[in-house]
Amino acid sequence: MHTVEPIRWTPEGVVMLDQRLLPREVVYHTYTDYREVAKAITDMVVRGAPAIGLAGAMGVAIGVERSKAKSLDELRSEMNVICDTLSRARPTAVDLSWAVERLRSRFTALAASQHGADGLSHVRAGLIEEVEKFHDERRAADRRIGEFGAEFMPKSGRVMTQCNAGALATGGIGTALGVIRVAVEGGRKIEVLVPETRPYLQGARLTAWELHQDGIPLTLITDNMVGHFLKAGGVGAVVVGADRIARNGDTANKIGTYGIAVLAREHKIPFYVAAPISTLDLSLASGDEIPIEQRSSDEVTHLSGVRVAADVPAAHPAFDVTPSRLIAAIFTERGVATAPYDESLTKLARRE
Amino acid sequence: MHTVEPIRWTPEGVVMLDQRLLPREVVYHTYTDYREVAKAITDMVVRGAPAIGLAGAMGVAIGVERSKAKSLDELRSEMNVICDTLSRARPTAVDLSWAVERLRSRFTALAASQHGADGLSHVRAGLIEEVEKFHDERRAADRRIGEFGAEFMPKSGRVMTQCNAGALATGGIGTALGVIRVAVEGGRKIEVLVPETRPYLQGARLTAWELHQDGIPLTLITDNMVGHFLKAGGVGAVVVGADRIARNGDTANKIGTYGIAVLAREHKIPFYVAAPISTLDLSLASGDEIPIEQRSSDEVTHLSGVRVAADVPAAHPAFDVTPSRLIAAIFTERGVATAPYDESLTKLARRE
Repeated sequence: MHTVEPIRWTPEGVVMLDQRLLPREVVYHTYTDYREVAKAITDMVVRGAPAIGLAGAMGVAIGVERSKAKSLDELRSEMNVICDTLSRARPTAVDLSWAVERLRSRFTALAASQHGADGLSHVRAGLIEEVEKFHDERRAADRRIGEFGAEFMPKSGRVMTQCNAGALATGGIGTALGVIRVAVEGGRKIEVLVPETRPYLQGARLTAWELHQDGIPLTLITDNMVGHFLKAGGVGAVVVGADRIARNGDTANKIGTYGIAVLAREHKIPFYVAAPISTLDLSLASGDEIPIEQRSSDEVTHLSGVRVAADVPAAHPAFDVTPSRLIAAIFTERGVATAPYDESLTKLARRE
Repeated sequence: MHTVEPIRWTPEGVVMLDQRLLPREVVYHTYTDYREVAKAITDMVVRGAPAIGLAGAMGVAIGVERSKAKSLDELRSEMNVICDTLSRARPTAVDLSWAVERLRSRFTALAASQHGADGLSHVRAGLIEEVEKFHDERRAADRRIGEFGAEFMPKSGRVMTQCNAGALATGGIGTALGVIRVAVEGGRKIEVLVPETRPYLQGARLTAWELHQDGIPLTLITDNMVGHFLKAGGVGAVVVGADRIARNGDTANKIGTYGIAVLAREHKIPFYVAAPISTLDLSLASGDEIPIEQRSSDEVTHLSGVRVAADVPAAHPAFDVTPSRLIAAIFTERGVATAPYDESLTKLARRE
């Protein structure tokens, strides 16, 4: 399997796959200016919280690498501009500001012990090293999530997912799709049922494409076929990603996830969540406290820029919340959490 | 309320609203040749089984009215060609062949007692009368379904539907939407939640448009928002149409209906079916015997002619089956059926 990489650090610059053009065109851009990287994040060339974080970190590194600063002092003041520009690229993405801060701290630590022109190149090398380490950690976390989750996949049959919790979203092998990849590598005969995931069609455009590239069998369905296929489609498990997980295990994820969870329970099919520990928000007691982002109704009345409905009111909650009673297990890079989630998730969060 | 009429008999010919162009363009065609009517049926200018039946009947009537036959004998042989052409326009639509046969029988009865040129115009007038009677019966049936069902609608709040079981599909006030129309006329404060109904988007293109024309408040949602809105969207009832109903009440309807029914049950929201008696198929003991039409996967990978997915396998079951245990009541023009449906439906079918 040569799983697609949505973002990569190269000697030529930060290489990003333009996800807006998928699946019709496969176009990679190479950015050598941190401002271009920030713009690419804003314009959604890259999406998926973990991949956005990675992009932010690489943006900082390219800014420092290509800086014309002649001294550490000069670079230090430029560093603030670089970090602020990248942090602001998508203000609501927690992973982004967290990743930028990681690079800023590393810069401060490296710069503190260096002086002169040699120091400058040492700091530059150190930041590139940090970004590559960050990407390696990301890859390792996905793989561990996959290894923990793969055991729960059926030996053969269908597995349903939702949206895109894949390589395109994380920069590793993906979370939900990472579980499926490890299961397939281990010899399980899995076909993936991919709901298209309106209104953005991440399932149709991204997940179907990404699995197809890897040669993993799949069938694309519309979102309203979920019930029909869970009833009689030979589905052995459902595995999805997460945007935020509350302390009690309630999980916010792409709109439609809750409906799939209820329908899975109706047919006694286990429903799993795969997500890195960073998705956990222990400050929230339950899913009731997770705010649901309401997006533009134009995204519902239009499709690929084409108006599909009359000029009528439309709603677009971008996420829904799945109560943890419907979740059989949560796979993280530190292990598997099961009910009672208050206990199991808190324990995993504290483990290093 | 001036509810839209998808098809109408006029002195100028058969007038049809071109549903393929909705909601972007509102175009009416006037057909004066039965072959044009047959082609319009084939090309899906009109859709919805009851409306297709009406179109077939009007096609026969216009064929006879505009015939150049100079004698009843001449007209008799032309009649066979007219009826066969219209019957074949959509071979799987039961309502179509049934409606054409109704006109053929009426023709035979009228022609049997007539002779000469006067007889010719008498037969012509008789068929036009039959077609108008047929349309009136259709309107009356929808209204009766609506009156029976309206009592079950909430006094205020939201009602969810699915696909288009409206005026556009029947030529009356619609079945599911007829229930909502009568409820609104009776003073109930209802807002309709309209799932877009992929892959054909009948909800977005037709139901939203039709309700908007009538000034009935609505909110359009994508199909994967159903769970979210049934959980916390103030929905008091769900009402849908039906394509076929088995003796035990199991109901085949547009794909997605089954998922909505399960999600409605999860949230203790009553789920109703509104359909004319002609939808009942007492020869089928249960929904297991209803064949599910598998349509082209291109309809899933494309939207409005635009490719939205990679060239991957896709499935397109056009219908699903909702078991009658999830159905609170079935509204027909002869009354309301409730469990046990074997009994209640059989009784309604036998009542004239």
